Amino acid sequence: MAQRREHDFLGEREIPADVYYGIQTLRAIENFHITGIPLNTEPLFVQALAYVKKGAAMANAELGALDKNIAEHIIKASDRVINGEFDSQFITDLIQGGAGTSVNMNANEVIANVALEMMGKKKGEYDFCHPNNHVNCSQSTNDAYPTAFRIALINKLSSYKQSLAALAESFDKKGDEFKQVLKMGRTQLQDAVPMSMGDEFKAFATTIREELARVEESKRLISEINMGATAIGTGVNAPDGYAELVTKHLARITGLPLVLASDLIEATVDTGAYVQLSGVLKRTAVKVSKICNDLRLLSSGPRCGLNEINLPPMQPGSSIMPGKVNPVIPEVVNQTAFYVIGQDLTLTLAAEAGQLQLNVMEPVIGFALFTSITYMTNACNTLREKCVDGITANAKHTQEMVMQSIGIVTQLNPIIGYEQSAAIAREALETGKSVHDIAVKEKKLVTQQKWDEIFTFDNMIRPKFINS
Amino acid sequence: MAQRREHDFLGEREIPADVYYGIQTLRAIENFHITGIPLNTEPLFVQALAYVKKGAAMANAELGALDKNIAEHIIKASDRVINGEFDSQFITDLIQGGAGTSVNMNANEVIANVALEMMGKKKGEYDFCHPNNHVNCSQSTNDAYPTAFRIALINKLSSYKQSLAALAESFDKKGDEFKQVLKMGRTQLQDAVPMSMGDEFKAFATTIREELARVEESKRLISEINMGATAIGTGVNAPDGYAELVTKHLARITGLPLVLASDLIEATVDTGAYVQLSGVLKRTAVKVSKICNDLRLLSSGPRCGLNEINLPPMQPGSSIMPGKVNPVIPEVVNQTAFYVIGQDLTLTLAAEAGQLQLNVMEPVIGFALFTSITYMTNACNTLREKCVDGITANAKHTQEMVMQSIGIVTQLNPIIGYEQSAAIAREALETGKSVHDIAVKEKKLVTQQKWDEIFTFDNMIRPKFINS
Amino acid sequence: MAQRREHDFLGEREIPADVYYGIQTLRAIENFHITGIPLNTEPLFVQALAYVKKGAAMANAELGALDKNIAEHIIKASDRVINGEFDSQFITDLIQGGAGTSVNMNANEVIANVALEMMGKKKGEYDFCHPNNHVNCSQSTNDAYPTAFRIALINKLSSYKQSLAALAESFDKKGDEFKQVLKMGRTQLQDAVPMSMGDEFKAFATTIREELARVEESKRLISEINMGATAIGTGVNAPDGYAELVTKHLARITGLPLVLASDLIEATVDTGAYVQLSGVLKRTAVKVSKICNDLRLLSSGPRCGLNEINLPPMQPGSSIMPGKVNPVIPEVVNQTAFYVIGQDLTLTLAAEAGQLQLNVMEPVIGFALFTSITYMTNACNTLREKCVDGITANAKHTQEMVMQSIGIVTQLNPIIGYEQSAAIAREALETGKSVHDIAVKEKKLVTQQKWDEIFTFDNMIRPKFINS
Amino acid sequence: MAQRREHDFLGEREIPADVYYGIQTLRAIENFHITGIPLNTEPLFVQALAYVKKGAAMANAELGALDKNIAEHIIKASDRVINGEFDSQFITDLIQGGAGTSVNMNANEVIANVALEMMGKKKGEYDFCHPNNHVNCSQSTNDAYPTAFRIALINKLSSYKQSLAALAESFDKKGDEFKQVLKMGRTQLQDAVPMSMGDEFKAFATTIREELARVEESKRLISEINMGATAIGTGVNAPDGYAELVTKHLARITGLPLVLASDLIEATVDTGAYVQLSGVLKRTAVKVSKICNDLRLLSSGPRCGLNEINLPPMQPGSSIMPGKVNPVIPEVVNQTAFYVIGQDLTLTLAAEAGQLQLNVMEPVIGFALFTSITYMTNACNTLREKCVDGITANAKHTQEMVMQSIGIVTQLNPIIGYEQSAAIAREALETGKSVHDIAVKEKKLVTQQKWDEIFTFDNMIRPKFINS
Repeated sequence: MAQRREHDFLGEREIPADVYYGIQTLRAIENFHITGIPLNTEPLFVQALAYVKKGAAMANAELGALDKNIAEHIIKASDRVINGEFDSQFITDLIQGGAGTSVNMNANEVIANVALEMMGKKKGEYDFCHPNNHVNCSQSTNDAYPTAFRIALINKLSSYKQSLAALAESFDKKGDEFKQVLKMGRTQLQDAVPMSMGDEFKAFATTIREELARVEESKRLISEINMGATAIGTGVNAPDGYAELVTKHLARITGLPLVLASDLIEATVDTGAYVQLSGVLKRTAVKVSKICNDLRLLSSGPRCGLNEINLPPMQPGSSIMPGKVNPVIPEVVNQTAFYVIGQDLTLTLAAEAGQLQLNVMEPVIGFALFTSITYMTNACNTLREKCVDGITANAKHTQEMVMQSIGIVTQLNPIIGYEQSAAIAREALETGKSVHDIAVKEKKLVTQQKWDEIFTFDNMIRPKFINS
Repeated sequence: MAQRREHDFLGEREIPADVYYGIQTLRAIENFHITGIPLNTEPLFVQALAYVKKGAAMANAELGALDKNIAEHIIKASDRVINGEFDSQFITDLIQGGAGTSVNMNANEVIANVALEMMGKKKGEYDFCHPNNHVNCSQSTNDAYPTAFRIALINKLSSYKQSLAALAESFDKKGDEFKQVLKMGRTQLQDAVPMSMGDEFKAFATTIREELARVEESKRLISEINMGATAIGTGVNAPDGYAELVTKHLARITGLPLVLASDLIEATVDTGAYVQLSGVLKRTAVKVSKICNDLRLLSSGPRCGLNEINLPPMQPGSSIMPGKVNPVIPEVVNQTAFYVIGQDLTLTLAAEAGQLQLNVMEPVIGFALFTSITYMTNACNTLREKCVDGITANAKHTQEMVMQSIGIVTQLNPIIGYEQSAAIAREALETGKSVHDIAVKEKKLVTQQKWDEIFTFDNMIRPKFINS
Repeated sequence: MAQRREHDFLGEREIPADVYYGIQTLRAIENFHITGIPLNTEPLFVQALAYVKKGAAMANAELGALDKNIAEHIIKASDRVINGEFDSQFITDLIQGGAGTSVNMNANEVIANVALEMMGKKKGEYDFCHPNNHVNCSQSTNDAYPTAFRIALINKLSSYKQSLAALAESFDKKGDEFKQVLKMGRTQLQDAVPMSMGDEFKAFATTIREELARVEESKRLISEINMGATAIGTGVNAPDGYAELVTKHLARITGLPLVLASDLIEATVDTGAYVQLSGVLKRTAVKVSKICNDLRLLSSGPRCGLNEINLPPMQPGSSIMPGKVNPVIPEVVNQTAFYVIGQDLTLTLAAEAGQLQLNVMEPVIGFALFTSITYMTNACNTLREKCVDGITANAKHTQEMVMQSIGIVTQLNPIIGYEQSAAIAREALETGKSVHDIAVKEKKLVTQQKWDEIFTFDNMIRPKFINS
Repeated sequence: MAQRREHDFLGEREIPADVYYGIQTLRAIENFHITGIPLNTEPLFVQALAYVKKGAAMANAELGALDKNIAEHIIKASDRVINGEFDSQFITDLIQGGAGTSVNMNANEVIANVALEMMGKKKGEYDFCHPNNHVNCSQSTNDAYPTAFRIALINKLSSYKQSLAALAESFDKKGDEFKQVLKMGRTQLQDAVPMSMGDEFKAFATTIREELARVEESKRLISEINMGATAIGTGVNAPDGYAELVTKHLARITGLPLVLASDLIEATVDTGAYVQLSGVLKRTAVKVSKICNDLRLLSSGPRCGLNEINLPPMQPGSSIMPGKVNPVIPEVVNQTAFYVIGQDLTLTLAAEAGQLQLNVMEPVIGFALFTSITYMTNACNTLREKCVDGITANAKHTQEMVMQSIGIVTQLNPIIGYEQSAAIAREALETGKSVHDIAVKEKKLVTQQKWDEIFTFDNMIRPKFINS
């Protein structure tokens, strides 16, 4: 296999002639073998790195820090990377040491070599376009890497938000569909008072829909970038006005509302925006997991459980028990939620481990956020398509459960008082009789007419206050 | 000891005649022995419960659901509880089962008995003012308890925010004081490029100050209450218009921007606002812990460490090593942060465990938030008063470290290029020589005049881009 | 109030004349205000500190490092502290900075002053018995503190183990009681195959009983102490043979199987034994929480839930719903489990934060373990006494559920094959018919005689393999 | 593409004719799209599934539950799967719902089809060898899946243990190499007393080596299997004596010390062994992370840090700062540790979520353990090969730091007392003078001869107790 030689200040190495990355990427590939999951698993991140290099080249050219011709070729090469043409060249392991230096150099090297070829030069002829001096001009890993990371995150959150919104929509539709289904509401797993199953599903929609606002708030924090900070936020080696200019260019070419952080020293070390976003992902995971727990409970049975709803059967449920169908979709979503909660901890540990002027643990922060957002997006889509959309209600059964319940006695409180109601409840519990029989027939505390007035469907799901 | 007899639907019990709580509180005290930390450790919570009872009595009276005279006495009794007169009567363990029923009944019973005495009746004569029928009128634990909890949280966050703001202020002042102190910036614990120590401390101020906005956002979510939802959000047994009216009254008497949740079914089970607030507390804990790690690193030594700053000595540091003074204040703050991060997990588990129409784990959510906010407030105050305010800088030493460092070679990049700079760095590292000696004297790559132009204090802490 | 003056190398301070602690404890009290929970909340820890001081005095006297008369008085003073006479003097906040120095000095000062009084001297006349030179002789906080901590832990684990064993025993008894109760087993919340309720409760006993062995394994790691390591494990300022001798004395006077760590440098910084113990506590918390989840599920209802068992009613369950009784005891135990899991995280963070020759975060490790063990002990006792012992089974109902279930079709597999069984299951599900009707009456795939042979109680709870 | 048709009780589907898996695997592939990481990422798991099928076929044949010819072909087919021939057919996503049913059915279907081909039949002719009736005979997912999982874990732990042992060995060698290097020991990041750098590295070896015993203990718990439990532990549809027999066969063919659980009901739902193992992995992660923190601290500099050791340079450290070399290997190991700690939480959540007779969350438990063990193994190997083995000491510098430190005053305590020593320390701190100058030259508290006796290398690293 043909090779070319490259060197850095640790020495010289042979590189396969056809690859676009260079010696520093080669070292990274050799150094980091942890997850086996390469950088290009996140094409939005590769794209974002190229956006950063393009924006920097534009600003550098304008400010005279970079030769116009070189800048032009860096911009063109970046565009090809943005379009995904060179994804295969970004193969550093997602978890690495070096605070992203390897990822940044991977981008610098690939873009330099693509530019060189477009200039009619050979790969590795870095005098004409150098990974550090030109592609990385006025930048450091410590501003280029987190900026690219943030751009990738914002773009990634778009499809995540769509999947959340669609899930909420789906619950909403079921809410409409189940509007007239009367069922027993339960608190502490004990029978409480009646409700409409539609309202139960509307509440799922409400609680998911709230997450959209939380994600949006987090995105605002993520949109704050630190381009121009260079090494530690003092802007060493960046020309005057560069930080503002590159931010303006980046906002324009990405179409995102990027703004420059006001305190670049702080912005270079702080990972608070990631902690916030991860906290929101965790919050959503908690909510989605709670909903899946409910779906599994409500569909428990078919004969020895609550049996209120039916989830669409997706696969035979048992290798031994015939006819068994399990709630496999909520189950896989629960597990995804547990993964996300675990990754929030990983990220928290990484955030706390920042020291002095930099948080070196940013790669694992990236790993945590990228995988969590991907898995959550997949889980929300799966839950919607393969479960929620196909749920049906056992309306007859749930209504019967309500009418034979003791919980409906609560609605007699305003008429006969809490203590009388409690006595009926106790008697019902001990004898197995119905509340109706005790209250109307035996104790004659309520007339049949009053009873009928109270226990209409409407008054059970949206009770009106009825005085004695 | 004199006793009175009370009963509930489980039977009859003797209660010490002089206590204001009743049979249900007695059962709670007997049932729950986990932490030994009583409810009245959080007087703001006791107060908030009484606010809720007062607001409900007002709304009930206005809507005709409660006799005016009884309502009047409930209001007066609540006012006395609000003023802290009966804190000693709130002794249920902070962690209980029952989703807060015991806490709500504790409030109902105490207020009923205080009201009874003010009516000239004896404690326990509940026909005249009943804990359930009157004090708890139009309420359920499931709306009264979380509403009180939220009111208490908002009030508790006030002093927390003050302590955060004061800490940021304190770092800011040190930032001004250390403005002219030149020091080495470090990334990945390796010497990077110079900076002003003032900027380092200003960044601490910036990062803490950001938390104020996050707490404020969380408070907005906490301000959404579910009064009128009663048992499960359907509003069973609450009069028409009650939810809006009681919310209006509560907002007025507490002076807080309380609003009614739009989906009361969702609001009764959802604990998302707590997850969000806890996530923010965790974020702050992470940041404060990172700062304390830095303070401990920067003050390491005195002779075999970085020795950049001196923390005020608070106590002898060792029972065996004479003269040793340790960074005890940052240490205790680190530990507090670990506690808060742990409690965020406790709360997350509790939030995920909500089922169907209620989250029964709300007491431990209260425990987690109350203790975390208290400890964090204490930790921020301690850090400010006993540490930050007394920090001094070893300016001479830090400046010397900068000038003998290799890291300053970075500032030669734009003039002599990255590769030449790297060669100087390598030689310095191998020989122990200074960058100045190599660059100016030996290799003559930079004139002394250029050197002096580059390495001014101003150009080291706020580098200007200097072309060759 | 009368005062005495004491000094340390930071200066001089007034101390109330009647207190036994001295200037360093005073400073600690002033410095650390985080939790408000004082050291003497853990009397076993106070006792263990005194054991350490007594053991050290014995060894020091024997090796000639301490005057025999002074040693004698330290030993006597320690004995009084061991007996709990001076618990009120140990009031440092449980979470402090300084890696335990304040706690160690609190013990040194109290014991010195008690000894002084027993010598006929005044408190503070440290020339005759000095907190550092005499009470702390041949020790450092870095060996004395963790050794005391470990002794306290081992003693504390005794009552914890008793509560675990009693809980297992209690489940075992219920297992015997419910031996003949036939019920539906459930996997994934779906009806599976029948089982004995006795076996279900026996499994709870088994799973709890396994924890005893895990605690015992952890105790073995905790029993490894580092006395004689002094400051960093090199044994500076400790006489030859001291480490072995003081370990021998400590083992004897505490009656515990204490052994000296083989690598004192490692033992002085490592917190692995605490991580292991906390991991075991977490494991038990997970198991207990799972059991409580089951108890709440099995007792759900009474009419719209599984209703298999009845938990003893402990208190009225609702301030609005009459007759409602909730599973308050399992609920409080679930919440305790969440606390313990959260504290495991706190401890993990603290363990990871150890640096170089010491882990300075040991106080919060102590806080986490002490509170977790206390709360878990309380929770296990509460669960046993107030819940498990009083559980009753609804045997008739659970048996009916089994016979009307579809799940029993599994037992026909070996006779009619998985696919035929699946067809019956599907028909039962769609029509609401019983398996018996379809299999025996309609499809005549099984004779009534064969059916009776298969569906005996014994063959349902311990199925024998029956060929066609 | 050629297709064959298969059916299950949900209906009929087309399957590509050349694949060995069947309709249920197809459904699983369609249903579960979360991580994109397929089952065959863990070839040991695929292998273990085949071991289970082979062992079951052996036992079934012996007990007459399975036709000998079919059993023979299942065994042969299993052997080919064990050898890795069909890894490509195991493509279910690692995180699925269904408690492993899809994975178990994937194995059942592949083995059935391989057997069919070996019998001269076509794939899908299940009358001759059926995934459920034959390959899964006397099994349920609920015993086959966890048994395979446990076998895979035990085998996977072998290479993990090797990597731990090699890492300990590597630290031990460095311990020998640095035996004569004198350095300052530090507690709370403050200079404490001198020590040998060899002892510091030996302590790293000790602490890692302890993990081997913990892993071994955990393996013992993992070795307990529940074959024969079938659906819920009652052994429904398994022949008499089968459980013991299949366990014996499995132990023999795997060469592992597998034993049958004593309480099969408990064993089928309990995940305690995984919690324990994960706790141990977390403990090791905590220790390794602490060591990496130390390595990064000790190598901080080169001029403005501790600069005690040099890590081998693996790659240029900065895209902007020339000559900067970063501790990239410890950094990536820290991040791996954070991942493992996060996955321990994921697993904890999954373990707590078990309900009634099964823990349906076992797939994510598998995901957590498989990835954690893989990543930790990779991290330990990386740390050893690319970092520890190449560490060098700056012995001259560390020795100078010791002699100019104040900490060495501790060794004068026994001679001049703690208070005199403290006075010297204070003077040194205030004036910058050396302890030697103050103690010997100025205050003449110690003779030069005594000084020389005390401050030998041997007496600094293994201090002897020297009386005045």
